Amino acid sequence: MDYPSKLIEEAVNEVSKLPGIGKKTALRLVLHLVKESESRTFALTESLNKLRSNILFCKHCHNISDDIECSICRSHRRDKSIVCVVEDTSDVMAIENTSQYSGLYHVLGGVISPMNGIGPSELKIESLLQRVSNNNGEIKEIILALSPTMEGDTTSFYISKRLKDYPLKLSTIARGIPIGGDLEYADEITLGRSILGRTLFG
Amino acid sequence: MDYPSKLIEEAVNEVSKLPGIGKKTALRLVLHLVKESESRTFALTESLNKLRSNILFCKHCHNISDDIECSICRSHRRDKSIVCVVEDTSDVMAIENTSQYSGLYHVLGGVISPMNGIGPSELKIESLLQRVSNNNGEIKEIILALSPTMEGDTTSFYISKRLKDYPLKLSTIARGIPIGGDLEYADEITLGRSILGRTLFG
Repeated sequence: MDYPSKLIEEAVNEVSKLPGIGKKTALRLVLHLVKESESRTFALTESLNKLRSNILFCKHCHNISDDIECSICRSHRRDKSIVCVVEDTSDVMAIENTSQYSGLYHVLGGVISPMNGIGPSELKIESLLQRVSNNNGEIKEIILALSPTMEGDTTSFYISKRLKDYPLKLSTIARGIPIGGDLEYADEITLGRSILGRTLFG
Repeated sequence: MDYPSKLIEEAVNEVSKLPGIGKKTALRLVLHLVKESESRTFALTESLNKLRSNILFCKHCHNISDDIECSICRSHRRDKSIVCVVEDTSDVMAIENTSQYSGLYHVLGGVISPMNGIGPSELKIESLLQRVSNNNGEIKEIILALSPTMEGDTTSFYISKRLKDYPLKLSTIARGIPIGGDLEYADEITLGRSILGRTLFG
């Protein structure tokens, strides 16, 4: 595409590096910024710069935080005997939105993926082991809440192996038919797992 | 939604003001920036700041430009007797991509839209009239290439009224069945116009 200005071209190139944003969408966003007042663009870029410069990660759970200790780890109302292991901050937010979980979290920062060059050492797995061993047995249960993909299952398996010598209950979140889902449209693996993992009625 | 950090919340609020980007997409983009290196975010914000601070508009056609005179108006290879009136820079880019037009442009910066408080004075219509009258008759034809919407048609009508005393040819781009389009699926107005506007075969 021919751009009317070098500045537009550079901005489009940068914006289109964001996930899910192609050149056409990037151009639409950039032209929108040019049409609006300068202060709008500066408010946007300042908020992003401030975020990237000042963002901290909790020293316990590695979740994104405004402090070196996040509000969940700091809270006295959370059950400190359960730790839920997740891939990312967005998973923490999703579980928090359910209001069904009152334990702590551990954010790995990804899953083991040899294809993308991500091994166990790139993730916060050692830190999880340290958390378990330095805890004087306060942690009783670890919930593995990773995606049901090849990579997620590999990571769950790896963590379960590393944790097998600790006196811990290891669990994973239930797999089954989603609420509102129709049996006949469920795939065989999910349906099979939902039968194996059946629970008592009522 | 509860955000794990004020900084994330502010960034999400700013990003979700962009057109077509909701809170969920904004969160995904912001978390992506946090995951990547700081320099990526700074490259993005710098390119946007530079764009917004330094962008210029061509003094003749009001298209986005790196200079006070754009490359199209400056070029000796363009036909200076035809001016194509469009709504926005993206329309100029779309027409340029066809390689079918060698005249000049005039970017209005929008269309007349009383609902959004945009009257003729908010657009570059006076500047078009000045361009025509200060030109010693060099401009022979004006092509109105605005969207076939209520607002676009109103704007075309308004401009045609204002230009009626000048010795000019006024034209609009052809409306009809798109190439590859099926007759039976075309709406009646488009099909009707394509019959009225029929051209000689071959």
